[in-house]
Amino acid sequence: MKIIVIGASGTVGKAVAAELAQRHDIIAVGSNSGAYQADISDIAQVRALFARTGKVDAVVVAAGKVHFGALADFTPEQFQIGLNSKLMGQVNVALVAQEHLNDGGSITLTSGIIADEPIRFGASASMVNAAVEGFARGAAIELTRGLRINVVSPTVLEESMDTYAAYFRGFEAAKASRVALAYSRSVEGAQTGRVYRVG
Amino acid sequence: MKIIVIGASGTVGKAVAAELAQRHDIIAVGSNSGAYQADISDIAQVRALFARTGKVDAVVVAAGKVHFGALADFTPEQFQIGLNSKLMGQVNVALVAQEHLNDGGSITLTSGIIADEPIRFGASASMVNAAVEGFARGAAIELTRGLRINVVSPTVLEESMDTYAAYFRGFEAAKASRVALAYSRSVEGAQTGRVYRVG
Repeated sequence: MKIIVIGASGTVGKAVAAELAQRHDIIAVGSNSGAYQADISDIAQVRALFARTGKVDAVVVAAGKVHFGALADFTPEQFQIGLNSKLMGQVNVALVAQEHLNDGGSITLTSGIIADEPIRFGASASMVNAAVEGFARGAAIELTRGLRINVVSPTVLEESMDTYAAYFRGFEAAKASRVALAYSRSVEGAQTGRVYRVG
Repeated sequence: MKIIVIGASGTVGKAVAAELAQRHDIIAVGSNSGAYQADISDIAQVRALFARTGKVDAVVVAAGKVHFGALADFTPEQFQIGLNSKLMGQVNVALVAQEHLNDGGSITLTSGIIADEPIRFGASASMVNAAVEGFARGAAIELTRGLRINVVSPTVLEESMDTYAAYFRGFEAAKASRVALAYSRSVEGAQTGRVYRVG
């Protein structure tokens, strides 16, 4: 398969690319790195990306920013960061991918455990991650030509615990290489409309 | 209790106001009707609203637009309608309400069954409704002073079946008066971070 991995230089994206590269051709995409660059919050850049890659069999997105902050201080503009980036960035990819995937191809998006297990400062992350999952449930039943869409919801990464441990006390962290297996199940399996939770 | 009902002229809002008015003082708010008017997608208007009502014990939101359309034709701008209105409108109310609710007060938002049970043309509704629920889960653990936040997720209304039946074949509809009971449980009960599903 020919597989686009967006966010391929991130901790998750790198592990996903490594897992899938054992059996497939990977096209690495980043905002500032990879074979192609694109800011997926801008659908015009997503269209330009797929025009350059040509038809592919799968696209994986492991990219997107979300603002963290105390609920008492949160502003609509800070919620908008996650809505524009992690939510609509991924939605833009799904919308454009519908036209550029080969029959039976797949779209795999990324949410996160905070969708289900809230943490302090995480109201926007809970909102955005849940929205990504809701979108995929809705989109799955309307995709044509055997196209599939799933979401991977990882727990906090072992590789990120240096930075984030204080926010995730008591959470079991997962190695990025283990999280990558869920992306492989989505891409190489046959399910659609699923959330693969890696806890 | 003194309770603000936003969207009080809608089918759900009217039933909620009727249910709660039996025991409480209702302040009806609409975009073009009610005791006060506010477009909740604009946080400045939400701030002005609470400045005029003074302290309250509960706020209920049963308002918000979402675009319906085929996934293949959906544009980012059409997703933005629901994000601005049904999602950020309700988030704006919650953000401002934190400061204007009496101790132990509650915020009750509205999602919808499409969050869990997708229908054709409903990708944005699935996304936005799930986002509202995710936000409330996240916000619930950060509210102070005993404040609570819950979501009611109604199925299609019996009163709306004339218009929507074709999109909801096989769904059990609920009378607005029955849906209103879930809002009463949220406002007059003691739970927080809950989604009350009325199927």
